[in-house]
Formats: sequence, structure tokens, C-alpha cells
Amino acid sequence: MPLLRFDVIAGRSREETTALLDAAHDAMVESFEVPVRDRYQIVHEHEANQVRFEDTGLGIERTDKCILLQVTTRPRSRKQKEAFYKRLCESLQERCGIAPSDVIVSLVTSTDEDWSFGRGRGQFLTGEL
Amino acid sequence: MPLLRFDVIAGRSREETTALLDAAHDAMVESFEVPVRDRYQIVHEHEANQVRFEDTGLGIERTDKCILLQVTTRPRSRKQKEAFYKRLCESLQERCGIAPSDVIVSLVTSTDEDWSFGRGRGQFLTGEL
Amino acid sequence: MPLLRFDVIAGRSREETTALLDAAHDAMVESFEVPVRDRYQIVHEHEANQVRFEDTGLGIERTDKCILLQVTTRPRSRKQKEAFYKRLCESLQERCGIAPSDVIVSLVTSTDEDWSFGRGRGQFLTGEL
Repeated sequence: MPLLRFDVIAGRSREETTALLDAAHDAMVESFEVPVRDRYQIVHEHEANQVRFEDTGLGIERTDKCILLQVTTRPRSRKQKEAFYKRLCESLQERCGIAPSDVIVSLVTSTDEDWSFGRGRGQFLTGEL
Repeated sequence: MPLLRFDVIAGRSREETTALLDAAHDAMVESFEVPVRDRYQIVHEHEANQVRFEDTGLGIERTDKCILLQVTTRPRSRKQKEAFYKRLCESLQERCGIAPSDVIVSLVTSTDEDWSFGRGRGQFLTGEL
Repeated sequence: MPLLRFDVIAGRSREETTALLDAAHDAMVESFEVPVRDRYQIVHEHEANQVRFEDTGLGIERTDKCILLQVTTRPRSRKQKEAFYKRLCESLQERCGIAPSDVIVSLVTSTDEDWSFGRGRGQFLTGEL
């Protein structure tokens, strides 16, 4: 159920996009302990002039490989969130060559009532999940 | 005030997009009982390789007509949410030929303070709404 | 940390997009009192037929310059939110020629745990911010 919305700068090949989505998904499965088919991912590509990714004064340099990932999820513990930030960066660096300085994450929390995965039902409410 | 963000796979005609937006809006008006001009809709089209819509292990098959709809709304009851999931699928099937197995919804809740519809004011706070 | 996602109708020049982002950022810095480098902005351009921006019956006319801005932020006071709505419209009118009737805002609130600005860490948790 986490929904992952990636905002990236255009210029990745199809293979690079696939690697990015796979690496992020594996980090999600590990950190939030979701089922392997609990996968909902969307990529938005932008021209460089259509995004501004600065650093809140932290002294972090960004490159054109910078990604901003917005995740909508059921409630997660602080521990799980911190594990995800860490594991995501490790996974993207190892498998996609994206530096940890190029990974920005924003989480948004919703509840069990807030998801329908198809068939017009809220599967966390019906007992299907 | 609900804001509806649709993520779809490219390939719909202008007429099909219009039908999708109209059908979803009518389901929203009926289920959440919002005014008919309470309509804020955005469509993002993606290449097929830029989305991953799986099924959380529910055994739901997706096609290229799959849509993911993210709704930002003031608080709604569980009953209203379930009514929306059901009505949306009925409406999309009847009017757009989209199967209920191709409809994914994620809701996000905000408050009265969180909306401005123009003129620099929060209309739920000023008494205009 | 506020993340600003702009949905606009295609047709702005690069200079107009820059002016829009700068004007909105300055309004944010003033109203929410964030650091000047606390800037995370994304623009989505759409064909006119891919958005519907109505008015909840408020009698507000929209033009092709209409923007919908969705902001994800840590908790803010009602006063700060109202200041932002007002300041944003003033700034966009003065610097971009966008009418206050063409500015729609939706805020979504998240917490300190929900942000990582890079390096795999949650900087509001580690004491870095």
C-alpha cells in the first residue's frame, strides 16, 4: 500500500528507471515489512528548470540525478521510517549509482480506511487484507 | 474541495479523458455530498514503464487502463469513503469501460484550514463556505 | 521542508516558470518563516483538457494562468496558513501577473519524522535541523 511518487529530472534510460523503482521497492519491503506485491510506484519526469531541490542549509550538494520521493503510507513507527531512509540510500547507491546526497524523502500518513486496491472495496476494512 | 489527482497510462483520447473526469466527479458529488462545482481534478499521463501498479497479493489483474486516483479531502466518514470506492468503480465501468479491477484509490485527509480556492483567503475559515 | 507541487497549464516560458517559483518561495519564507534554502519545488505542466479547476460555487472565474499548489509541510498555525494564502497571491500578482482568482492552494501536514533531506537520515530527528 505505500504509494511512492518519484519526481526526477528527465534523462534516465528505461533500464535506469526500472533499476530505480526496483531498488526503492526492495528498500520499502525490507523497512516497512510490506508484502512483495504491495507495490504502487509512479515516476514523474521533469525538465531541470521545473524543479528546485535545495538543502535547508544542510550543505548538501545536488546533481541532475537527484530524486524526490513522496510516500503515502499507513502509520509507521519512527524506527521504520529511519530504517527506510537509510536502506533506500544504500540501495540506490549500490544498484543505481545515486549518491545519498541526491535522495530526498517526504512521507505522508493515511489510515486503513483510506485505501482501495480495486473492485470498489476498502480491503483493509473488509478483512481481505 | 476534494482534490483528485489521476495517474494513468498514456493513450486515452481527449474524449476518454473527459469521460473519466466526469464519471469520477459524479461519484464524488454523490458519495461525499459536495457541491457540483467543488471540482479540482488533475490528470498525469505516464509511459507504461513509469508506473508499477501491483495488487498487494489480492490476485487482482491490471491492464493498461489502470488508474490510480489520489484524493486530498477534508475528513470524511468511513461510510462515505466506502461509498466512494463502490460508486467510483460503478461509474467508471458504466461510462468509461474501466474494470473495477483497474481502479486504485488513496485518500489523504486535511482540515478546514488547509484550503484556499482563490483571492488569498481560506474560504472555510472566513465563512464564505 | 515544505514541498511545493505546482500544477499548471502548459504554455509558460522558462522565465515565467522561474518567476513563479521565486515568487512562491519568497511568500513561503515570509509566511512560514523557513530558512531561505528550505526550498523543494516541483512543476507539473498539463494540457488544458487534463485539469478541471472550478470554484466550489464561490463565483471565481479561472483563466489559463490558473495554478493549483499543493504544499506538504510540518504543522503550521492557522495564522501562518492564512498569511501564506494572502502573501502568495500578492506575490504572484505583483511579480507574475497572476490574478488572485487564479491561485488555489491545498495544504497537507506531516511530522518531524517524515522528512529526509539526503544522506539517509531524518534531519529533524538527528538534531541536524
